Amino acid sequence: MVNKVKRLLIGRPMKSGAIEEEKLGKLKALAILSSDALSSVAYGTEQILLVLMAAGFAAIWYSVPISLAVLGLLTILILSYRQTIFSYPTGGGAYIVAKDNLGVSTGLIAGGSLLVDYILTVAVSSAAGTDAITSAFPQLHDHRVGISLIMIVFLTIMNLRGVTESASFLAIPVYLFVLSIFVLIVSGLIKLMIGGVHADVPEIGTAVSNISLFLLLKAFSSGCSALTGVEAVSNAIPNFRKPAERNAAATLLMMGIILGSMFLGISLLAYWYGITPNPKATVVSQIAESTFGRGILYFVIQGVTALILFLAANTAYSAFPLLAFMLAKDKFLPNMFKARGDRLVFSNGIIFLSIMSALLVIVFHGDTENLIPLYAVGVFIPFTLSQLGMMVRWFRIRPPHWGIRLVVNTVGMLTTLTITLIFIFTKFAQVWMVFVFLPIVIGMFYQISKHYRNTADQLRIDLHKDKPVIKGSTMVIPVAGITRAVMNSISYAKSLTDNVVAVYVGFEEEEIQKMEDKWEEWNPGVRLIVLRSRYRSVIKPLIKFIDTVEWKTAETDHITVLIPQFITKHWWQNLLHNQTSLVIRAYLFKQKDVVIATVPFHLNR
Amino acid sequence: MVNKVKRLLIGRPMKSGAIEEEKLGKLKALAILSSDALSSVAYGTEQILLVLMAAGFAAIWYSVPISLAVLGLLTILILSYRQTIFSYPTGGGAYIVAKDNLGVSTGLIAGGSLLVDYILTVAVSSAAGTDAITSAFPQLHDHRVGISLIMIVFLTIMNLRGVTESASFLAIPVYLFVLSIFVLIVSGLIKLMIGGVHADVPEIGTAVSNISLFLLLKAFSSGCSALTGVEAVSNAIPNFRKPAERNAAATLLMMGIILGSMFLGISLLAYWYGITPNPKATVVSQIAESTFGRGILYFVIQGVTALILFLAANTAYSAFPLLAFMLAKDKFLPNMFKARGDRLVFSNGIIFLSIMSALLVIVFHGDTENLIPLYAVGVFIPFTLSQLGMMVRWFRIRPPHWGIRLVVNTVGMLTTLTITLIFIFTKFAQVWMVFVFLPIVIGMFYQISKHYRNTADQLRIDLHKDKPVIKGSTMVIPVAGITRAVMNSISYAKSLTDNVVAVYVGFEEEEIQKMEDKWEEWNPGVRLIVLRSRYRSVIKPLIKFIDTVEWKTAETDHITVLIPQFITKHWWQNLLHNQTSLVIRAYLFKQKDVVIATVPFHLNR
Repeated sequence: MVNKVKRLLIGRPMKSGAIEEEKLGKLKALAILSSDALSSVAYGTEQILLVLMAAGFAAIWYSVPISLAVLGLLTILILSYRQTIFSYPTGGGAYIVAKDNLGVSTGLIAGGSLLVDYILTVAVSSAAGTDAITSAFPQLHDHRVGISLIMIVFLTIMNLRGVTESASFLAIPVYLFVLSIFVLIVSGLIKLMIGGVHADVPEIGTAVSNISLFLLLKAFSSGCSALTGVEAVSNAIPNFRKPAERNAAATLLMMGIILGSMFLGISLLAYWYGITPNPKATVVSQIAESTFGRGILYFVIQGVTALILFLAANTAYSAFPLLAFMLAKDKFLPNMFKARGDRLVFSNGIIFLSIMSALLVIVFHGDTENLIPLYAVGVFIPFTLSQLGMMVRWFRIRPPHWGIRLVVNTVGMLTTLTITLIFIFTKFAQVWMVFVFLPIVIGMFYQISKHYRNTADQLRIDLHKDKPVIKGSTMVIPVAGITRAVMNSISYAKSLTDNVVAVYVGFEEEEIQKMEDKWEEWNPGVRLIVLRSRYRSVIKPLIKFIDTVEWKTAETDHITVLIPQFITKHWWQNLLHNQTSLVIRAYLFKQKDVVIATVPFHLNR
Repeated sequence: MVNKVKRLLIGRPMKSGAIEEEKLGKLKALAILSSDALSSVAYGTEQILLVLMAAGFAAIWYSVPISLAVLGLLTILILSYRQTIFSYPTGGGAYIVAKDNLGVSTGLIAGGSLLVDYILTVAVSSAAGTDAITSAFPQLHDHRVGISLIMIVFLTIMNLRGVTESASFLAIPVYLFVLSIFVLIVSGLIKLMIGGVHADVPEIGTAVSNISLFLLLKAFSSGCSALTGVEAVSNAIPNFRKPAERNAAATLLMMGIILGSMFLGISLLAYWYGITPNPKATVVSQIAESTFGRGILYFVIQGVTALILFLAANTAYSAFPLLAFMLAKDKFLPNMFKARGDRLVFSNGIIFLSIMSALLVIVFHGDTENLIPLYAVGVFIPFTLSQLGMMVRWFRIRPPHWGIRLVVNTVGMLTTLTITLIFIFTKFAQVWMVFVFLPIVIGMFYQISKHYRNTADQLRIDLHKDKPVIKGSTMVIPVAGITRAVMNSISYAKSLTDNVVAVYVGFEEEEIQKMEDKWEEWNPGVRLIVLRSRYRSVIKPLIKFIDTVEWKTAETDHITVLIPQFITKHWWQNLLHNQTSLVIRAYLFKQKDVVIATVPFHLNR
């Protein structure tokens, strides 16, 4: 049953050899890796204007230079990530680059913040998608958490089905979004040129009395949240079709150009239209309304914007499992993140990401807006560390033209570092949590690593010196009566060794006498030892007896506790039997160095 | 830790021999077995008046003859249960009497309704106790479910501590209640005699225009709900000190006299004071206020009434585990109800009763008033069956004076049957559920019984013909690498038989080659079989391999699957290891007829 549902939801298992077919071409990669970055267009300009409005309407002209600065930063990031891709063709996420050049601890800082960040991405995006839906259908407002969770479940299933399949399916809304935003920008520009817009906007350069550097920096850093998601491509190189690094670099460039032109277009239109933030209508929707009126095109733009906000989560679904795999390979995360599932994706990473983000949605009742700054700072820390790593690398290996490459990364590092600091200073109330959870996550990484090292040390043998040795054998069979299950166990034990005792725990003299008589009558060729329990416990006298046996024979013998167990046909029938054997097993397993063998007796009625 | 908390809450374990000291004397027995019956005084008269008021104030004089009728019924019940006690000195609950004289199915009807009834008693009483508390402290009203649950937990702990201890502790409020009600009745009568009361009440015999037989019957049956709990003594004979039947009979008589005089006293005072039901003050509290004013005595009576309502639940805690024990002894309930816990009480019955009643409280949000009629009908069905059983018994064994005894039980049977029918006709909307759950419960009894019979048939052996036989042995060790745990397993297997194979499931040619080379280098004296898994599943190829082994050798050999398992020091470390061995074990255990042995390797770091 469970198996059938699984097949239906995620499809048939795939052979390991099929992995090359699951890799991504450029166009599909662009679709699933850029949805996070491109979705920023839906809110980036708005974030800038929101901050500027604190200084009054006259200040909105600053959005133009600030947007240009963000664009400049985007260019720097694209250039430096291109360098990273060619330097680390097998996968150049911030974790790898930082670990390789700045040491393991720095790598873990980068990796840890990215892991947490992807979880935040899913929570924030699914909440944003839900907001778009409940704006359209306000009667659903009470079911926000439920809708977000359904979205997460949907993304989980899509991603468990495999990379190419989800890419084919999810590419459509991404391309629709890009197309419709470009149509909007071009139409808006045409309308402006033919003089269809009559907005009275402050000229660029207008003096604004109460503007401060702090405010401008805050506006700039808010605009920079549009750049989250840019790192996704360099993390995902192993998912690209060969030649992976070339395809990845080309994809990154395409993404940069599309993102940059969309962001600049929307920012300029917003300025020329004189649009101000409005809690009831987003900047993009105001531009669309001014351009097209409330017609079909307006609603198309609203719809695809909602979709892309929701799909931004999908970028995390590509990046998180890969990063978890790399950390698990280095023994900083549990082994389970290394296993590929039926459809060749890292299923455990996908499922873990879903569970954690679902928990966030539930804990925050779907109000995840406050997490956005946290999420931005969580991206810019690894950005900075990755660039710093690249700088060290150029110094170390000094390839041809390393000077110019060093400059690119240095400029990138300084800019992202500055933005990180701006974030911390201007939004400390919302980002301080990063300084709590990062040390916890990194401490966890080291704990895990230590456990794996300890385990390996204890399990390791010397192939030449350590060989299996032959010892004697003692078998103990706890019996509760004379049954077919007991008979099978004795048959089994006597087939292996002559050293077998049966142990019976009795409460009352009468039943003990009866058992002893019956045993003698049966005479199975095995001695029966009777333990008297005055406190009506079966476990304690038995454990004490096994202790004695262990103390006497552990040196020379392997000790086996043989548990006759009948297995009922239906699960509910287990309620009808005292599960003493399970308790014995659990206790011995945890406490004793004895082999526990279960001799099954399957009831067929 | 768990053990320490357990000791603190329920005390040290007791030796089986101490059971005689745990038995009850008459006074303690009266306290814990009569709290259910005596608590009826708090609401019995009120129930009658509530029905009569439908015909107007003039009808309240009917409460006097109706109360006398209830008193008559009480006398009949006490007399017939006395006969039962002497006929069944080892315990004469309705289940035993009905089963013995009317057949198993009838016994199960009586037993089933009583079991369900005790659960209802606990739910209803804890809710009634909670209502008393929240009347005094209205700010606690939102925490009603929580308070009820705390009460149930308290009763559970008291009862798990053992019978005498709970009796000593719980006797105080019961005797306080009896004392204070008698003080109230006597003071009230004195006040009446010295002429301190001037109520204008309808004289007995006044014609009431709109009274109907239906209404009178309904009022009578409502009054009869005061008689629930009378059967508790005859169920609990095994809990009495020797001579058990004499002590039980004396206790029953005392209870009857106390209950009867209290009930009659309250009913007469209510009539003479001209008291009518009032949602804001109970009949007892109105009498107390009229007699004492709102002084200390008034509040004492309110307090002990609240306590006794809550303690009524405790009667169920005495009766339920004993009845469950008897049903389990007859294989109609799971074995676990037969075990005496650390304190010599039937702990599983106590815990089960608590869980079920807690669930009822939760499901009904603490509003369990609607369950009261259901609970009354659930008592009168076994009352009737038990009397009918006694009638059959007198016919069957015909002891001296059996005629008069037959008459007593016949009158009792007819009366309780009538009341059952009145309940069903006048309150069908509230009691129809009994016809749904009784068949379900009885069906369950038979299912359980059938399972035990089937199991016994399959496990039974002929002591003379069936003897253990010696067979060959094949051991299969699934290995994931070459570790100390694997070495221990091979040592163990080779110590028992020469027929050992190690099985390795590999995903990629490279790792398979590496494993094979290492194995050859190690040369542990055991053949390594490599299974290739193209779908990355460890379980499936392994199961297929074991199938093959089983098909080839099951006739001649015992097959053992030996699972090397390392046991981590802390539970959380288990998350760091793929629990493949557990999955293998669970699958084999359920599906295959092979012995599963776990060779432990305890990690100490």
